[in-house]
Amino acid sequence: MLADYSASHSTPVHGTPFVRTLAKEMPSHVGADVLLQGWLHHQRQMKSVSFLLLRDRSGIAQVVVEDSHVRAMLGNVPHEAVLAVRGRVVAAPQAPDGVEMHDPVIDMISAGPEEPPVEIFRPVMQTQLATRLDHAAIALRHPNRVSTQRLLSAAMHGFRNTLTANGFTEIATPKLLEAAPEGGANVFTVDYFGRPAYLAQSPQLYKQIMVGALERVFEIGPAFRAEPHDTSRHVSQFLSLDAEMGFIRDHHDVMAVARDVLAGMMAKMAKVKSSEAVDIPTVPTTIPEIHFADAMALLGDALGQDLRDEPDLAPEHERWLGDWCEQTFGTAWLFVTGYPMRKRPFYTHPQPDDSRWSNSFDLLFRGLEIITGGQRLHLHSDYLAALDQRRIDVTPFAGYLEAFSYGMPPHGGFALGVERLIRQLTGAENIRDVMLFPRDIQRLSP
Amino acid sequence: MLADYSASHSTPVHGTPFVRTLAKEMPSHVGADVLLQGWLHHQRQMKSVSFLLLRDRSGIAQVVVEDSHVRAMLGNVPHEAVLAVRGRVVAAPQAPDGVEMHDPVIDMISAGPEEPPVEIFRPVMQTQLATRLDHAAIALRHPNRVSTQRLLSAAMHGFRNTLTANGFTEIATPKLLEAAPEGGANVFTVDYFGRPAYLAQSPQLYKQIMVGALERVFEIGPAFRAEPHDTSRHVSQFLSLDAEMGFIRDHHDVMAVARDVLAGMMAKMAKVKSSEAVDIPTVPTTIPEIHFADAMALLGDALGQDLRDEPDLAPEHERWLGDWCEQTFGTAWLFVTGYPMRKRPFYTHPQPDDSRWSNSFDLLFRGLEIITGGQRLHLHSDYLAALDQRRIDVTPFAGYLEAFSYGMPPHGGFALGVERLIRQLTGAENIRDVMLFPRDIQRLSP
Repeated sequence: MLADYSASHSTPVHGTPFVRTLAKEMPSHVGADVLLQGWLHHQRQMKSVSFLLLRDRSGIAQVVVEDSHVRAMLGNVPHEAVLAVRGRVVAAPQAPDGVEMHDPVIDMISAGPEEPPVEIFRPVMQTQLATRLDHAAIALRHPNRVSTQRLLSAAMHGFRNTLTANGFTEIATPKLLEAAPEGGANVFTVDYFGRPAYLAQSPQLYKQIMVGALERVFEIGPAFRAEPHDTSRHVSQFLSLDAEMGFIRDHHDVMAVARDVLAGMMAKMAKVKSSEAVDIPTVPTTIPEIHFADAMALLGDALGQDLRDEPDLAPEHERWLGDWCEQTFGTAWLFVTGYPMRKRPFYTHPQPDDSRWSNSFDLLFRGLEIITGGQRLHLHSDYLAALDQRRIDVTPFAGYLEAFSYGMPPHGGFALGVERLIRQLTGAENIRDVMLFPRDIQRLSP
Repeated sequence: MLADYSASHSTPVHGTPFVRTLAKEMPSHVGADVLLQGWLHHQRQMKSVSFLLLRDRSGIAQVVVEDSHVRAMLGNVPHEAVLAVRGRVVAAPQAPDGVEMHDPVIDMISAGPEEPPVEIFRPVMQTQLATRLDHAAIALRHPNRVSTQRLLSAAMHGFRNTLTANGFTEIATPKLLEAAPEGGANVFTVDYFGRPAYLAQSPQLYKQIMVGALERVFEIGPAFRAEPHDTSRHVSQFLSLDAEMGFIRDHHDVMAVARDVLAGMMAKMAKVKSSEAVDIPTVPTTIPEIHFADAMALLGDALGQDLRDEPDLAPEHERWLGDWCEQTFGTAWLFVTGYPMRKRPFYTHPQPDDSRWSNSFDLLFRGLEIITGGQRLHLHSDYLAALDQRRIDVTPFAGYLEAFSYGMPPHGGFALGVERLIRQLTGAENIRDVMLFPRDIQRLSP
C-alpha cells in the first residue's frame, strides 16, 4: 500500500503540524489525538452540547463539542463547509463505528456564504430530479450518490479485470466518424474543419476490425445518441462497455464471456461499502437461455395474444420474462437468443439452420436488457450481400470491409450498458439518477 | 484462471472435434497432436518443404509442410488468410520457442482474393505513414503495432490500478458541453438538437467538481481538440488520463501521486512481451524537480540567450532539459514546477510567496511534456477574481462555480497524455503511429 499522500505532509492546525486521519480509521486511534479533514455534513445543537458530523471519503465521523465559544461559532457555519478538526478519539458505543471525537479544535478551510440549495444531509434527498441535476455540484455529494458512483467505478473495474485476465486488450477507438455507421438515425453532427463528422454511437465497427489484430479487445467509453425522446431512460451520452473476440464457434462462446464478466463485476461491486442497501446478486455458472421464438410463444400464451410476428421484445415483455425467469430458474439473469434477423444490424450472423433467426442475444437483468451481443458475419462476401440486401451504400464502409477482405475469423462480442445495470441494482427511478452530469434533449449543463 | 472460451467447444477439423492450442502453448504439447488457429503470417516455399508461420494472439508458430498436395494448395493462399491447422508438435531447437508442427492438416477459415496492400510480415513495415493509416484494418495487424497497443493497454491498467488502490474512484464526465470551457479556441461544435454544443477538450471542470463528492477521482477518456496544425504531434482526438484529489498541501502532493502512477504504469508495461526492444525505464522514488525560473536561467546560460521573460518552455528547451536531467540525475523523468501564472489557465493556484509563479508542474519524459498538473484555486472568491482579471464571462461557469460556493478543500490534479508517453517509449516518429485510427485536419477515416 502506498501512503496517504496528504499525510506525508504536515497540516498546521493552530500552529501544530499533524497528519490526517480518515473517519473510518478512528477506531484504531482510541485515546489518541487525531486530525480529521472533511465536510460539515450536519450538526445538531443540543442544550449543552453539539454533535457535528464530519464527512470525508471514507465515511462520517461524530464530533462532540462542549466548548460554548466553539458551539457559538459553529452555529453560523453552513452545511458543506470544509473543516479541519483536531481532537481526542474516545470510545462511544452509541456513536457510529463506536467512536467519537471530543474536545475538538476546529479550523475553517472553506465555507459558503449560505446554506446549499439541496439538503444532502437527509437520508434521502427530498428534492425534485430537476433540482438535483441543476445543482449537481452539491447533490452529487449525497452519500447515496457517492455510493452509486462507487458501484459504477467497481463495475468498470470488474469488467476490465475479468477481460484482461482472459487475454483481452483494451483499445480506444475514434468518436468522430466520417459516416454515420448504422443507418444515420439519431446521430449528432459535428463541424469538422468545415465538413460534417458524426459522433460514434458505438465502437462496433472498430472493435471488429481490431479482432483482426488482437483477437480479443475491449473498450470502455462514451457513446452518443441524439435521442429526441424525453423519458426516464433516454440520454444523449452513455457509457458503453464493449468486448469483441475472435475464433468463436458461435454466440454461445460470447455469452460465456459475458457471464464471467458479469460475475467479475458483481464481485467488485459486492465490496463497495454502500450507504443504502443494495442487493448484489450472484451470477449462476450457466445463465438460463431461451430462444426468441420460444419466448414469444410463452408470452403469447400468457398474455393471450398472437405475438408470432413480433420482431422484438417490448419493455413489458422483458419485464414478464424477468419474472418468469425468477420463478422458473430462481435467478435475475436471462439470455434471450435468436432475435429475428430483420431487427438486428447488418453485421449480424444468421442462425445457420434457419436464417429468419440470428446468432444474437440480449441479456435481461430483472426484466431489463442490459447487454446486446452476438456472432458477426466474418466473410467479405457475406457483408457485401447483407449490405446489398438492406440497400446500404458500401462506400462509407470501405475501411471496415477491408478487415474482412484479407481473412477474419468467426467472431462476436457484446455491449453492456453499465448505467442501466446500476439503475436496476439501485432501483433508481430515472437513469439520470445514476449518471453524474446527464445530457438529454433538454439538458446540456452543468 | 478462466477457460479459453473457444476451447470449451470443439472445432471440427476434417470431421474430428479438437480443442484450440495457442502458439505459445506449443512447448508443453511436444509429441501431441494439437489444433492451431490463426492468420497466415508468412510462408517460405523451399525445394521440398514449406515453412508456414501462423500468427495468433499469443505469438507465431512454425508449421512444416512436406505433403506436395498441401504445398501446392498453400501456394495460392495469400498472406492473412485465417487457417485451422492440426498436426504434431515436434521439438526443433532451430525453430521459434524450440518447437514446430509437422504433418499438418489445414482447413481454410477465410481468405482474401489477393495479397494485402501492406506487407505486415516484414520486421518493419516498409510503407508510407499515409498508406499504413489508409489501410489500418491490415496495418494494425503488424506485430509491432500489436505490441504498441498492448503497451498502451498496460499503461491504462497501471494507471487505474494504482489510483484505485489509493482510494480514487473512476468517473465518466460529459463530452458534450454547453460552453467552451477554456477560452473557446480549437473547440469542435456539435449540432445539439438545433443549438450549439462543444466537444470537451478535457474533463478538468468536472473532475474538480467531483472532488467535492469523492475527494479522489480519475477518468480515462477521449478529449477533443480542433487542431488546425498538420504536424507529427497534432491530432483531433487523444486519450486523456486524468486524476484529481482533495486535501492536498500543495502541488507536491499531486506530484507524489503522479510519480506513483507512473511507477505503476511502467510495472505493467514491463510485463508486455513486445515484438521489438522497448526500454521501460524505472521511475525514481523522488523525481528530480526544477523551478521554471531556475530552468530558464540554466537554459539562458547554456544557449547564450536572455529567456527571463519567456512565458513557457519551447520544445527545444524541453529536449535540452531532458538531456540535462539525464546527465545530472541519471533519470529520464523531470518535474518542472512554478510555470508563470500568465500562461496557465484561470483555475491555477498561484505560488503563495510570489504570485508571478504558480503551484503548477509539467512532467518531462526524455525531454517531452507528458503530464501537466498543479494545485487549483479552491475559494469561490478567488475564482471570481481570477475570471474577472482575465475578463472571462462567469455565466457559463455557474454549475462549476457552485462547487466552490459551498466548501471545497485545497485540491489539485494532473492530466497524462498516454499516447505521447508511448511515442517516447517506442521512439515512434509520429504520434499517429501509436494510435489506432487517428483523426486530424486531413483524416476522418477509416
